[in-house]
Amino acid sequence: MTVKVGVIGTGMIGSEHVGRLSRQVVGARVSAVFDVATERAAEVAAPAGATAHTSWEALVADPGVDAVVIASPGELHPDQTVACIEAGKPVLCEKPLATTPAEALRVVQAEAATGRRLVQVGFMRRYDLGYIDVKKAMSDGTIGEPLLAHAVHRNASVPDFFQGEMSMTDSVVHEFDVFRWLFDSEITAVTVVPVKQSPLGAPHLRDPQIVLLRMTGGEVVTVESFVNCRYGYDVRCEVVGSLGTVSLDNPRTTVVIGGAGRSERMPADWRERFASAYLTELQVWVADVAAGRVDGPSAWDGYAATAVADAAVTSYGKGERVDIDLAAKPALYA
Amino acid sequence: MTVKVGVIGTGMIGSEHVGRLSRQVVGARVSAVFDVATERAAEVAAPAGATAHTSWEALVADPGVDAVVIASPGELHPDQTVACIEAGKPVLCEKPLATTPAEALRVVQAEAATGRRLVQVGFMRRYDLGYIDVKKAMSDGTIGEPLLAHAVHRNASVPDFFQGEMSMTDSVVHEFDVFRWLFDSEITAVTVVPVKQSPLGAPHLRDPQIVLLRMTGGEVVTVESFVNCRYGYDVRCEVVGSLGTVSLDNPRTTVVIGGAGRSERMPADWRERFASAYLTELQVWVADVAAGRVDGPSAWDGYAATAVADAAVTSYGKGERVDIDLAAKPALYA
Amino acid sequence: MTVKVGVIGTGMIGSEHVGRLSRQVVGARVSAVFDVATERAAEVAAPAGATAHTSWEALVADPGVDAVVIASPGELHPDQTVACIEAGKPVLCEKPLATTPAEALRVVQAEAATGRRLVQVGFMRRYDLGYIDVKKAMSDGTIGEPLLAHAVHRNASVPDFFQGEMSMTDSVVHEFDVFRWLFDSEITAVTVVPVKQSPLGAPHLRDPQIVLLRMTGGEVVTVESFVNCRYGYDVRCEVVGSLGTVSLDNPRTTVVIGGAGRSERMPADWRERFASAYLTELQVWVADVAAGRVDGPSAWDGYAATAVADAAVTSYGKGERVDIDLAAKPALYA
Amino acid sequence: MTVKVGVIGTGMIGSEHVGRLSRQVVGARVSAVFDVATERAAEVAAPAGATAHTSWEALVADPGVDAVVIASPGELHPDQTVACIEAGKPVLCEKPLATTPAEALRVVQAEAATGRRLVQVGFMRRYDLGYIDVKKAMSDGTIGEPLLAHAVHRNASVPDFFQGEMSMTDSVVHEFDVFRWLFDSEITAVTVVPVKQSPLGAPHLRDPQIVLLRMTGGEVVTVESFVNCRYGYDVRCEVVGSLGTVSLDNPRTTVVIGGAGRSERMPADWRERFASAYLTELQVWVADVAAGRVDGPSAWDGYAATAVADAAVTSYGKGERVDIDLAAKPALYA
Repeated sequence: MTVKVGVIGTGMIGSEHVGRLSRQVVGARVSAVFDVATERAAEVAAPAGATAHTSWEALVADPGVDAVVIASPGELHPDQTVACIEAGKPVLCEKPLATTPAEALRVVQAEAATGRRLVQVGFMRRYDLGYIDVKKAMSDGTIGEPLLAHAVHRNASVPDFFQGEMSMTDSVVHEFDVFRWLFDSEITAVTVVPVKQSPLGAPHLRDPQIVLLRMTGGEVVTVESFVNCRYGYDVRCEVVGSLGTVSLDNPRTTVVIGGAGRSERMPADWRERFASAYLTELQVWVADVAAGRVDGPSAWDGYAATAVADAAVTSYGKGERVDIDLAAKPALYA
Repeated sequence: MTVKVGVIGTGMIGSEHVGRLSRQVVGARVSAVFDVATERAAEVAAPAGATAHTSWEALVADPGVDAVVIASPGELHPDQTVACIEAGKPVLCEKPLATTPAEALRVVQAEAATGRRLVQVGFMRRYDLGYIDVKKAMSDGTIGEPLLAHAVHRNASVPDFFQGEMSMTDSVVHEFDVFRWLFDSEITAVTVVPVKQSPLGAPHLRDPQIVLLRMTGGEVVTVESFVNCRYGYDVRCEVVGSLGTVSLDNPRTTVVIGGAGRSERMPADWRERFASAYLTELQVWVADVAAGRVDGPSAWDGYAATAVADAAVTSYGKGERVDIDLAAKPALYA
Repeated sequence: MTVKVGVIGTGMIGSEHVGRLSRQVVGARVSAVFDVATERAAEVAAPAGATAHTSWEALVADPGVDAVVIASPGELHPDQTVACIEAGKPVLCEKPLATTPAEALRVVQAEAATGRRLVQVGFMRRYDLGYIDVKKAMSDGTIGEPLLAHAVHRNASVPDFFQGEMSMTDSVVHEFDVFRWLFDSEITAVTVVPVKQSPLGAPHLRDPQIVLLRMTGGEVVTVESFVNCRYGYDVRCEVVGSLGTVSLDNPRTTVVIGGAGRSERMPADWRERFASAYLTELQVWVADVAAGRVDGPSAWDGYAATAVADAAVTSYGKGERVDIDLAAKPALYA
Repeated sequence: MTVKVGVIGTGMIGSEHVGRLSRQVVGARVSAVFDVATERAAEVAAPAGATAHTSWEALVADPGVDAVVIASPGELHPDQTVACIEAGKPVLCEKPLATTPAEALRVVQAEAATGRRLVQVGFMRRYDLGYIDVKKAMSDGTIGEPLLAHAVHRNASVPDFFQGEMSMTDSVVHEFDVFRWLFDSEITAVTVVPVKQSPLGAPHLRDPQIVLLRMTGGEVVTVESFVNCRYGYDVRCEVVGSLGTVSLDNPRTTVVIGGAGRSERMPADWRERFASAYLTELQVWVADVAAGRVDGPSAWDGYAATAVADAAVTSYGKGERVDIDLAAKPALYA
């Protein structure tokens, strides 16, 4: 059985998804696309042999679409996801699930009302071999009882339109999800500590920053956010347990020795670093859809991450602790 | 277009290929299998929806087979490969291409006579990201002019039927191919130097050994062969150039700190270490076949590696240098 | 010229200093010792050919003592250091300079009143090759403008008498000094964030903890304090600048590959990790004394570290930010 | 007791020894120096307060000289060492002990005739912490039974007067000694395999080369010799045992992340890499002399290394195996 996928949004990440679904994922084909930029949509549709729809609603309704990938601007995600739920179609929604906790909660409640999971949120890190090995070391006793973690999240640079708060909602939101998942615990408070700014970034970025997360179980996570580190893309963490620690490091293929000493290359960007994770995410999702289930990061995960990001934006620039009160968790996500 | 693949031999590696072609490779399906162990063949055929043939000749002749994968015992490879050539069908033959240089040369000549490439030999390392990065550093000037290399090839253990000479024909043969490829040069002489034997291996293994390769361009490669190193699978190399060096190291996902200090896990076996390389090899081969070409390691590569392995077996246990005289290289492989 | 050193306190660290001064430091000998444990003092004095005094006042007054090392309990440091100042004798006082900021300030003022430096505080890390290389990378442009740092400070275990607050005054105090030195900046506020406790440590330890330091220049430092990590002694940091980062890692001599994978040994304790630093500290101090100067960490450094430790104890267990108001800095320390 | 040392030869290494003995080694002072370059000798003597002798014979005879360090040209070592033996004075002779095996044997026999050890040869690597840890892992069971080793020995560049054979007698001779010591076994044969030459070195250097050592116990060692590697000084090895391996890597203090990726600095030259080893060598030798004994690398070690170097020069450029027949080993060295 081939899963026929409709893709809403054919910007950078949407067209990458179309490419992967067409050429690298087994058991899927892209049957429909939509983008407000209709020319762009047509260009992406053609090589995939897909229909270019004139509205996302038409795409969702298309009987030739078994499942939907949403890669449109974040503000549109809740309406589009809820439409998929109402159509009974599995949907993989890129992060964020919504731009406000209230909107995210609306999706959660819509799905919970149906009594079954249809929504997966695009937290692709959970499919990275490194993070999977970190989680394994946390659960198989290797490091004893996990207590705290340190993380760095660095990008070489950001585009001019990037606002400082986006470091929380667009970059560090991945850390919010990943540590919720690794510790199997909710984040209860966030403090964004201002740091001396890099002279190389735009002043409005207030870059870098240190984000302190407190979790239900008492675990604490420190996250460095630096969207303008210049040298590359650098995502690492060390989880500390009662008996030892496990660290995620950048993947290594080769070591070069020469004028610069002994050196290992760093990833240039998230596209390079997480290429495999994106592919695995799609492959597993397609196989799950074919098997009639949805198993990945849930609408609840999307809601919780959005709630933390919202609190982080409140704390941003102030250094004050902001507590997070989540809604009651529907039984569907237990 | 879906490439319909027939697989000859459904032992360990053959059935792994069937699994990959069925579930992980885009654009292929397994349409036929054959094995002298007919029950085993039937078991493998069923989930793939493939025909289980009663002879390999029938499989090759099957019009429902577009291309063939050969994973039978090595002695059968030349006849089976030549049959594919005669049938005009692309064939991916597991290493070795043949068990003697003469037999391998027979395949080369059969293919050369047709004037076009149909044969690819299963040297999957050329699809490993690490080796690809090594080759890149050798050709883009990073290390200057490549001059020599050091390699280690270690297996945790070998089965009881393993004969010492098989360390040359089955294990180190991968090094023969990979250094021919990396240096873009033929191996002209091989010396297998006996070493103090490990007390933990069977005496007939004469394990470990050091293999010295001299190449057309004057490059020299030292290879340690150790099929009984106990601790895991460990394949590494350092290529030394006039300006620096590039090393292939084991992939790293995580680092654990604990009672044993700071540690990185080693691969357990070649299946784990080269899983991605095997998959990429098949994926690229299928895409090539669909595009009407064969581009990977050639019959000539298979012949040259077999000739070096043959010389290594001659040197084995004696420590004497054995020169290698290759036949004239047909223009097809220029 | 041989510097004749008197050592007050012959407990663990005091007797180690006597051993180093006797056998490893060029240009020094131990001429006098004192300890309230008179038998212990006599034992330590004998092999060094030193006089065992009956009071520390007598040792300071001894004309056969050119310079003094203080390794007595912290509460006694201010009186003993001030006595050395009054006697005009150079003094190397083990950390802490005092157990309260007021007492430390008393030493500072006593020294400042004399108009010349006689006091050095035993922050031996400043003599560690690794930290020296970190400082070099921070000042020579390698990492651009330094902005923030992450540090971990872990001990395998602590003795039963260890109180939780001692993690601030005895362990992390080294971090307070080292980051003041590295950033050439004062610490203006400290927050000690409580973390889920390790089940393997005594409950009163509240172990581990995360300490957040804010500095005059806006730099922020996160420090993990874990006095009960079980696996060894682990002191590392990463300093982040506008162009790159520099990390202090544990020294490496060898790498072992075996059953546990690829591993590097960790130091067992601070004695192993900082043995060279302690020796260099003493050697440089003795050479400085012989040259008529004192150049190492100053009484002001001791006062500032004590003030930060005091604020950390106030914050300990509460997670509240505590600001630090240092006294005016005498010109002597400019 | 202070050991009064006379130093013969005040070139680079000789004057470095004078500096260390004067300023860094406890329990020694330089009382006399000699060099045919009398001005140079006088310059070196003055700050140390040493007598500048007009002949090395006078220095050896000087009653104010307790022990001698020889750092003159290698051709003079045997006569000078034998003179020290005859004078009954402990002598630390820089490598090589002699430039021919016969001359080295003359020293061995002269010392053996006295029935007690007076000669130590300057193989300072045996005092390097890394090599000491390698030896420990080889003898404490960590890697099982040691079977073979791989080594690289690279220098950034060599002076114009450097002849190719000097790579064997001056550089790789350290490897000859270190593997004899690590394996506690003699080298019985050496093969120097010519390699494609680096275009960046003088043609007469025939650089790099691969040297194959066979040892009494059947162990085999491969050594890469590269005196013109450009990027720095790089001495590493991996010793392979029946259960695992131990590798000597370059010492690490810090890791820098930046434009070149994640990098560790390499040592610039042997002076930087082995500074501590040279100091420890002298310190231990002085303490031994003061205690009336000589314990380090012996005249026998110097002879054996010279014999291997001589065989390597014979093999140099030919690639032929040259066997080594050592004289009978006097009981003194058992």
